[in-house]
Amino acid sequence: MKITLLNPNTSRAMTAKIAAAAREVAGPDVEIAAVCPLDGPAAIESHLDEAFAAVAVIELIRRDQLEGGSDAYVIACFGDPGLDAARELVDVPVIGIAEAAMHVAAISGRSFGIVTTLSRTLGRAQDLLHRYGFDRTCVAAYGSGIPVLDLEDVSGPAFDALAGWCERVVREDGADVVVLGCAGMADLCDRLADRVGVPVVDGVAAAVGLASGMARMRVGTSKRDEYAPPPRETVGV
Amino acid sequence: MKITLLNPNTSRAMTAKIAAAAREVAGPDVEIAAVCPLDGPAAIESHLDEAFAAVAVIELIRRDQLEGGSDAYVIACFGDPGLDAARELVDVPVIGIAEAAMHVAAISGRSFGIVTTLSRTLGRAQDLLHRYGFDRTCVAAYGSGIPVLDLEDVSGPAFDALAGWCERVVREDGADVVVLGCAGMADLCDRLADRVGVPVVDGVAAAVGLASGMARMRVGTSKRDEYAPPPRETVGV
Amino acid sequence: MKITLLNPNTSRAMTAKIAAAAREVAGPDVEIAAVCPLDGPAAIESHLDEAFAAVAVIELIRRDQLEGGSDAYVIACFGDPGLDAARELVDVPVIGIAEAAMHVAAISGRSFGIVTTLSRTLGRAQDLLHRYGFDRTCVAAYGSGIPVLDLEDVSGPAFDALAGWCERVVREDGADVVVLGCAGMADLCDRLADRVGVPVVDGVAAAVGLASGMARMRVGTSKRDEYAPPPRETVGV
Amino acid sequence: MKITLLNPNTSRAMTAKIAAAAREVAGPDVEIAAVCPLDGPAAIESHLDEAFAAVAVIELIRRDQLEGGSDAYVIACFGDPGLDAARELVDVPVIGIAEAAMHVAAISGRSFGIVTTLSRTLGRAQDLLHRYGFDRTCVAAYGSGIPVLDLEDVSGPAFDALAGWCERVVREDGADVVVLGCAGMADLCDRLADRVGVPVVDGVAAAVGLASGMARMRVGTSKRDEYAPPPRETVGV
Amino acid sequence: MKITLLNPNTSRAMTAKIAAAAREVAGPDVEIAAVCPLDGPAAIESHLDEAFAAVAVIELIRRDQLEGGSDAYVIACFGDPGLDAARELVDVPVIGIAEAAMHVAAISGRSFGIVTTLSRTLGRAQDLLHRYGFDRTCVAAYGSGIPVLDLEDVSGPAFDALAGWCERVVREDGADVVVLGCAGMADLCDRLADRVGVPVVDGVAAAVGLASGMARMRVGTSKRDEYAPPPRETVGV
Amino acid sequence: MKITLLNPNTSRAMTAKIAAAAREVAGPDVEIAAVCPLDGPAAIESHLDEAFAAVAVIELIRRDQLEGGSDAYVIACFGDPGLDAARELVDVPVIGIAEAAMHVAAISGRSFGIVTTLSRTLGRAQDLLHRYGFDRTCVAAYGSGIPVLDLEDVSGPAFDALAGWCERVVREDGADVVVLGCAGMADLCDRLADRVGVPVVDGVAAAVGLASGMARMRVGTSKRDEYAPPPRETVGV
Repeated sequence: MKITLLNPNTSRAMTAKIAAAAREVAGPDVEIAAVCPLDGPAAIESHLDEAFAAVAVIELIRRDQLEGGSDAYVIACFGDPGLDAARELVDVPVIGIAEAAMHVAAISGRSFGIVTTLSRTLGRAQDLLHRYGFDRTCVAAYGSGIPVLDLEDVSGPAFDALAGWCERVVREDGADVVVLGCAGMADLCDRLADRVGVPVVDGVAAAVGLASGMARMRVGTSKRDEYAPPPRETVGV
Repeated sequence: MKITLLNPNTSRAMTAKIAAAAREVAGPDVEIAAVCPLDGPAAIESHLDEAFAAVAVIELIRRDQLEGGSDAYVIACFGDPGLDAARELVDVPVIGIAEAAMHVAAISGRSFGIVTTLSRTLGRAQDLLHRYGFDRTCVAAYGSGIPVLDLEDVSGPAFDALAGWCERVVREDGADVVVLGCAGMADLCDRLADRVGVPVVDGVAAAVGLASGMARMRVGTSKRDEYAPPPRETVGV
Repeated sequence: MKITLLNPNTSRAMTAKIAAAAREVAGPDVEIAAVCPLDGPAAIESHLDEAFAAVAVIELIRRDQLEGGSDAYVIACFGDPGLDAARELVDVPVIGIAEAAMHVAAISGRSFGIVTTLSRTLGRAQDLLHRYGFDRTCVAAYGSGIPVLDLEDVSGPAFDALAGWCERVVREDGADVVVLGCAGMADLCDRLADRVGVPVVDGVAAAVGLASGMARMRVGTSKRDEYAPPPRETVGV
Repeated sequence: MKITLLNPNTSRAMTAKIAAAAREVAGPDVEIAAVCPLDGPAAIESHLDEAFAAVAVIELIRRDQLEGGSDAYVIACFGDPGLDAARELVDVPVIGIAEAAMHVAAISGRSFGIVTTLSRTLGRAQDLLHRYGFDRTCVAAYGSGIPVLDLEDVSGPAFDALAGWCERVVREDGADVVVLGCAGMADLCDRLADRVGVPVVDGVAAAVGLASGMARMRVGTSKRDEYAPPPRETVGV
Repeated sequence: MKITLLNPNTSRAMTAKIAAAAREVAGPDVEIAAVCPLDGPAAIESHLDEAFAAVAVIELIRRDQLEGGSDAYVIACFGDPGLDAARELVDVPVIGIAEAAMHVAAISGRSFGIVTTLSRTLGRAQDLLHRYGFDRTCVAAYGSGIPVLDLEDVSGPAFDALAGWCERVVREDGADVVVLGCAGMADLCDRLADRVGVPVVDGVAAAVGLASGMARMRVGTSKRDEYAPPPRETVGV
Repeated sequence: MKITLLNPNTSRAMTAKIAAAAREVAGPDVEIAAVCPLDGPAAIESHLDEAFAAVAVIELIRRDQLEGGSDAYVIACFGDPGLDAARELVDVPVIGIAEAAMHVAAISGRSFGIVTTLSRTLGRAQDLLHRYGFDRTCVAAYGSGIPVLDLEDVSGPAFDALAGWCERVVREDGADVVVLGCAGMADLCDRLADRVGVPVVDGVAAAVGLASGMARMRVGTSKRDEYAPPPRETVGV
């Protein structure tokens, strides 16, 4: 089984980190591929970035389809950009990492909190929480103020800052579980869980588990109406 | 005061129709401009189309800003593509026509129903209903099965079909008001209202009223955090 | 076009202030009238006041109808007293200023907060937030402790207190926009916006924009069932 | 213990019927009084009627207070007019019959349906369902088309029509319990329950049970903030 | 009329206290019985306890049915264990004390807060708040940290701690009413109300009022579908 | 990795069927065990059954813990009986099959419908839909009228009846995906999917995928507060 991770930003370092995080939790019969676009935003930190990220996801999935396709796709950006469009293009599972992290966190405890990068992205997180059904389950969401690209090398103080937010969401807001709000935090998950003492969920790992489970049970994307193949070949602007 | 309507599809006929509908309801001191992209989807009927429409909206608003800007912007497509990104780019009001139609309909009666083009777009409508706060107010939403581009010339049978859906949403679902789910229906509004006997709301007209009202009272887009200028100049893919 | 503002309390000073605020944002072709009852509560600060205010609104609208009527009505009290009954009496738009302020604030940002007079009125605000669909959009609502009639002359300390509440709702509760919870605050709107740095919405101005927009597009009150003319001429108690 | 029923319409026949229904379920130590205004609407079937009914309730409760007061008040009209204002005036329990019927129905089964008089009153019922927390519990609400005053003498066909609506709400909408949406239906409750085969709840009886229970346990109306005595003596318009 | 209180823990002291609290508010024609199981958890403070408590409730109600039955049952544990199963077994009213307390508190004010024993039980309280429709009405719920069995003798400091939580829920969270989250607090209700200055609701007393009211009006448990007699005689594990 | 399926009814045939369904979708490194109690209900079709099933789940999980434990547990009954209590007992993942099916269905499409056995179990399904966050995602839930034990051998007419309900939920209610509401339907999943043309989700398979994914990423049950080890060893009644 092959799962392809779509990183919509252009950072190859982050793409490699994502692939590594995915491989760590993949079953022995699961092959992980990870791709990113040549052009486009270096990080997804605004609605503007997100609009271009959605187009990048579409292009990446189309290219993969031309090259034989995959058994499942994971959109490796916490805003889940282009998820609905990607579901129109294939009939295998397509899962966003925000979506995956929220589902797994909701099974791990009664409530979760989100710690993400910039607070300006919390509006998008709120939209996704509602869309996936977790607006009641999520008890708090915070921006740490650490930009996406600074996550490539999380030194002591930055790690402490992140851990501080995780602790706050647990101690003050009563979250049972912490959801990490950026693919770039995938490698910090275990250290944060040790520090905070509750499960900490990285969406990349969560998505790999969900995607391989769905592929094994042959449940893909419903092609009824909304996600049926789109009526026209829209080329880029 | 100048209000610029952004039609994210490439149909010049529809752009002209939208401009005409807007001018009919604009106050005497309001100038209406209407623009559309050179390339991109001919109609917005899928999430795929919508992803490209969002980028088109961004490009149109950027171009207008370079040319002096406007006092308000209206995104003239019922999926309100690119609305959040557009709000990051300016501090004047930016209003989607789905948004505008829903607000006005909610003031005109206790409940409304939506009649749109293809049923595959109803998922997006549902997301918007929630985002704007009208999931309880909207009692039903139907796709008429009439594609966007067929609305350019609505002959008798097509009009009757649309009117039939409007009547259904009123008689069977108990809607007080009908919201038309496509900018291309702007010219049918009065005839449908006459036929159905309740207010029928076209989003283009509704958006012009809201935009000029907000511009007059100098309430634009809040630039606090989420809609502050984005951290980087994202160029197209 | 003539818009009539109905102030349900007996304060002529406040009626004049409301008219002035309305005229400042009205289009060049919009005539503003403002009326108040001879008897009844001097301010609307309790459910008891509100019950009598509803009857006052009904009497004012009936009198205006006898004298030729208006193109739209605005109920200029933040509790929107008598709104449903007024909608039964006419087929033009009838808009409450709480309703109008909430709609405009929801377009200006993702979230808003309310700063009103006495905290005892917050229950009514909560009912209205739900009725109009904005219970999720409103992130906080505070009573400033300043009674309605003290707003007639807002000296330095009182203004600072109001501004303090506005700042709290933005900085601590994360509101993108502030809604002023009393018609008597209409003249403070611009100064508060300057102080707080986000859009501040006065319901009187918001209602004038909405009412003239709806009148121009000929969308009034749906007369289907709930708001059809009432079955009997109820005279006062 | 004395419970006073406030019928806000002027029908003495209905007031007597309400008193009889209340006495049938009152405990041996409970005295029932029932009053109605001299002037005002003959029935409450519109928002207009309701506005005047709220004032009637206030006047009735004030008069009763002057005459020594009661241990609890019941507002015997399904729209619960004046409930909030009445709560400001006293510290004993004040219960609306819609409120009471909904609470009892929610304990009697997982879901209930409402059968009321005119469909134009369903909007008010919807507001109350939300206010009391039962919007999810109520699976359907229908207007029977039978005006309030026709309930004074429910002949065969009218009874059959009402029973038909009760059956519909149970068989088609899956309600476990039926709530009767008018004080004037109090005497039909048992016959309807026999016909439909599920519990049928009359709000007058429900309110008497709740009011006497609350009076016995000395839990009245919380006087914290919202329902504290109002700041001024508002006299009628 | 006979109301039987089912205490699912094995504490006879608490059973006696519950019976006393019930008798204090019962009407002159109401007989109160109170029973508890011989074996099982000594207190209900976990989901594990609750699972066994549900079976205890079933056994107690079955035994009472064999001995002639009662006119209504009250499940005297704030988690309302076994409520749905008990409703399958009888057609008279079955009321949980959490359910009863929440209903009465919602009539006594616009909002309530809960003060209970251990915070680990708050998840169950949250489920019940939703099930009964009061998730919006409840503004806060706190665990006092006082275990159930320590309530048998509430000395000064423990009472002060409880009172402190009640005050917090009123002053900081704005609750109009306090709900006590344990049958073992029944005897503290009046003292707490005196201290806090708002109504404090004990579920045992509330349930007795509701149960006798429903029994008098002959509204029991709807036997339609969900609560019809179960398809098999399930004997214990 | 070892996943233990807990079937709370006493049917060994169904236990074997569940194990087979689980093994079909388990990864190559996953060992599946399946257990059921010696005594207790033969099927779980009422709240009464469910109360005993919860105790059975607790006993099964305790016994497994004594014998070395598992890497994850699946409660193989659509009512997810005993889920909360089981989570108190272990720190590995515990997943109910209703929970699992709903999560996977929500990723496979925008909406799902449920087809289950007896309609009397739909109340429990409704509670679970809310608890897991899918009350909006689920567009309809039907009881087929086929008892659990009749599923052991689904002949032609019974299969057609089930398929008919699946088709209804898709065609009439607009579900993108069908969730099967009983572990006993696990072997019908593929045939139903072929017939209906949309993804059909069996909870046993879904739970195995989720459980192995969570075990691989080392995210178990949060032991913070609610699911911490219970304060006492409750033995059975």
